Amino acid sequence: MEQDKIKGVNLGGWLVLEKWMAPHLFDGTNADDEYYLPQELSEKEYLARITQHRSNFITEADFLRIASAGFNLVRIPVPYFIFGDRKPFIGAIDELDRAFNWAEAYGLKILIDLHTAPDSQNGFDNGGISGVCKWAQEPTEVEFELSVLERLAKRYHDRTALYGIEVLNEPATEKMFKSMTTRYLPRDPKKAAGSAAITFEFLYDFYQRAYEILRPILPNDKVIMFHDGFDLSKWHAFFTENDFENVVLDTHQYLMVAEMEGAELNPAAYEKAMNKIGDQIAAVNRYVPVFVGEWTLFNSYTAGINTQGGINPTQQEFKGAKHLDPAELAKVYQKLWQIQVTNWNRGIGYAFWTWKLNIDTINEPAWYGWDSWAASRALDRHWINPKDI
Amino acid sequence: MEQDKIKGVNLGGWLVLEKWMAPHLFDGTNADDEYYLPQELSEKEYLARITQHRSNFITEADFLRIASAGFNLVRIPVPYFIFGDRKPFIGAIDELDRAFNWAEAYGLKILIDLHTAPDSQNGFDNGGISGVCKWAQEPTEVEFELSVLERLAKRYHDRTALYGIEVLNEPATEKMFKSMTTRYLPRDPKKAAGSAAITFEFLYDFYQRAYEILRPILPNDKVIMFHDGFDLSKWHAFFTENDFENVVLDTHQYLMVAEMEGAELNPAAYEKAMNKIGDQIAAVNRYVPVFVGEWTLFNSYTAGINTQGGINPTQQEFKGAKHLDPAELAKVYQKLWQIQVTNWNRGIGYAFWTWKLNIDTINEPAWYGWDSWAASRALDRHWINPKDI
Repeated sequence: MEQDKIKGVNLGGWLVLEKWMAPHLFDGTNADDEYYLPQELSEKEYLARITQHRSNFITEADFLRIASAGFNLVRIPVPYFIFGDRKPFIGAIDELDRAFNWAEAYGLKILIDLHTAPDSQNGFDNGGISGVCKWAQEPTEVEFELSVLERLAKRYHDRTALYGIEVLNEPATEKMFKSMTTRYLPRDPKKAAGSAAITFEFLYDFYQRAYEILRPILPNDKVIMFHDGFDLSKWHAFFTENDFENVVLDTHQYLMVAEMEGAELNPAAYEKAMNKIGDQIAAVNRYVPVFVGEWTLFNSYTAGINTQGGINPTQQEFKGAKHLDPAELAKVYQKLWQIQVTNWNRGIGYAFWTWKLNIDTINEPAWYGWDSWAASRALDRHWINPKDI
Repeated sequence: MEQDKIKGVNLGGWLVLEKWMAPHLFDGTNADDEYYLPQELSEKEYLARITQHRSNFITEADFLRIASAGFNLVRIPVPYFIFGDRKPFIGAIDELDRAFNWAEAYGLKILIDLHTAPDSQNGFDNGGISGVCKWAQEPTEVEFELSVLERLAKRYHDRTALYGIEVLNEPATEKMFKSMTTRYLPRDPKKAAGSAAITFEFLYDFYQRAYEILRPILPNDKVIMFHDGFDLSKWHAFFTENDFENVVLDTHQYLMVAEMEGAELNPAAYEKAMNKIGDQIAAVNRYVPVFVGEWTLFNSYTAGINTQGGINPTQQEFKGAKHLDPAELAKVYQKLWQIQVTNWNRGIGYAFWTWKLNIDTINEPAWYGWDSWAASRALDRHWINPKDI
């Protein structure tokens, strides 16, 4: 057992909405993302949905269970409007305050992950607004994003539970931007006009500015974390030529991305792909600590159908999924857990995506296989055990 | 391990609301119960709160976890308006339909428990309207209640997951009625006027009528269950002089009630009280199977304060609770679990009250100790283990 490694789970879908993770929140609307939800509801109705969702989806009991299961960290995606200064969105700083108290009571660390930006840094549904990626081109909003980071740091810098702050989730550089534009069509093409990939040059600059703001506020034992922009190979100069204190590089590694990049849809191919990524992680980890901040068990083989990179049942209907025998299914998932954790531990550890999903695989069979995204369910099925590895 | 015993949990606070179990649902209103909540919200806001609560509070994942933990049954409290024919209340039959599918997928049985009646059968907050107990005096509503039972039986009679139907939860006979009137004051005294205890004569008659309606609809292997009206000693003639097929007597046994009846506030006194109740259960179980449909770990000793029968922090402020050392606390709870389950197994088994509570013991310290009402949390703390006993 690797006692010193980070064993985390993401509290996805809680303070940053993703329709597929809690579809009922979007019932009766045409909204596909956080941006359009308030446009389809009255102010009071929106408030009622959001407050009920937040107070139910993740609670004290989840922190208790996460700690009891053997995890030691939660990565908490937060939206740019967390401080409540971007109407009509509802601030979530009280929820984060409470989460810090829970984490400290149950001995967990918190990685705050700034997951969205105004007009989006990636155009994913989880970036707040699908099909739009203009934030990096809007200097005022870039400043705004930095101000959110500064306020978060000032609020939590002296909290025992604070592990660190990740300055921006999944900025879409060239390759990912292209893939996004085919997968997430904008609801309002006018709003999407002018969207563009984020360049690594922009990222280096933005990360440096964020570092300069955060480091003087955060004690040296608190981490400042940067997402790799979907390319682990772009960071050697950035980390070796700058004199950073206690920084970490975050990389997200999904089996479905490996599939998109050519891996066959079977466990042996997944193992090979993950071992190759593990080699990369080990190499980069020599000059900057590498953290796998998102990954999961989900894949097309166990889902029984080619999901084309994880396109989900709220986006497209899948029919005819092949169901593996439950014992065989468990064996595959257990192996995928082992292989992946072993590779992530060639860096400093991981955060599984995600803790909880409010989907119904029984009454809505299209969700078959999607339960493997949820660590809470995987624990009950004995597919994973953070105490083992 | 008693493989043949019923090891159940209640899905309390889900389809029948109790403010203390999910206080956020009542935020910003003066409502203390299900009856007054819709009076304080717009129709859309009420709908939004109720649907978000229901789709989040109990989900497929709970059924998975309950089964995985070693329980074999869920007792589901349902309201009289479950079929959606009593405005402004929102029907819940779709939720119950889904629960049957979940139960069958995960190998659990369901005991449907008709938990409320129009104008209430007990005046508890969990009876729907606090301080009012007039249902039994309203013949039309008595007929209505029977029609709900008939419709439930017709809908689920052939479902594998159906264990049985409990015809009425906790009718307040004389002694409990008196205690209710001092504890639950009516919001509208005019509406409460004419409230009275339910007599055992009424209950015998109502139960017999319910039996005659349900038995022809339900297959013989499905149970018809009757609550004891808070007195195990009143049922010998009823069950020996009638020729009932597959009926069960439900009795609710709370440590806090034992306290109110004179037990000292310490583990040894609780053990003595529970053993005495176990003797009663064994005696009655000779002529009718006895089920302990509600009980819990909660008590004043571990809560560190005299809660006077379980008065909760939404009703009264408690200060100065003594906190036991966590290891000692665990020892006491583990012992209370053992003693109680052992005694309930002198009948046919139990359903723990309750599976889940959405309270926050960290940010609202008044709730210290109240987490012991939730089996889900007790599992994480290793206070209980249905696989052991």
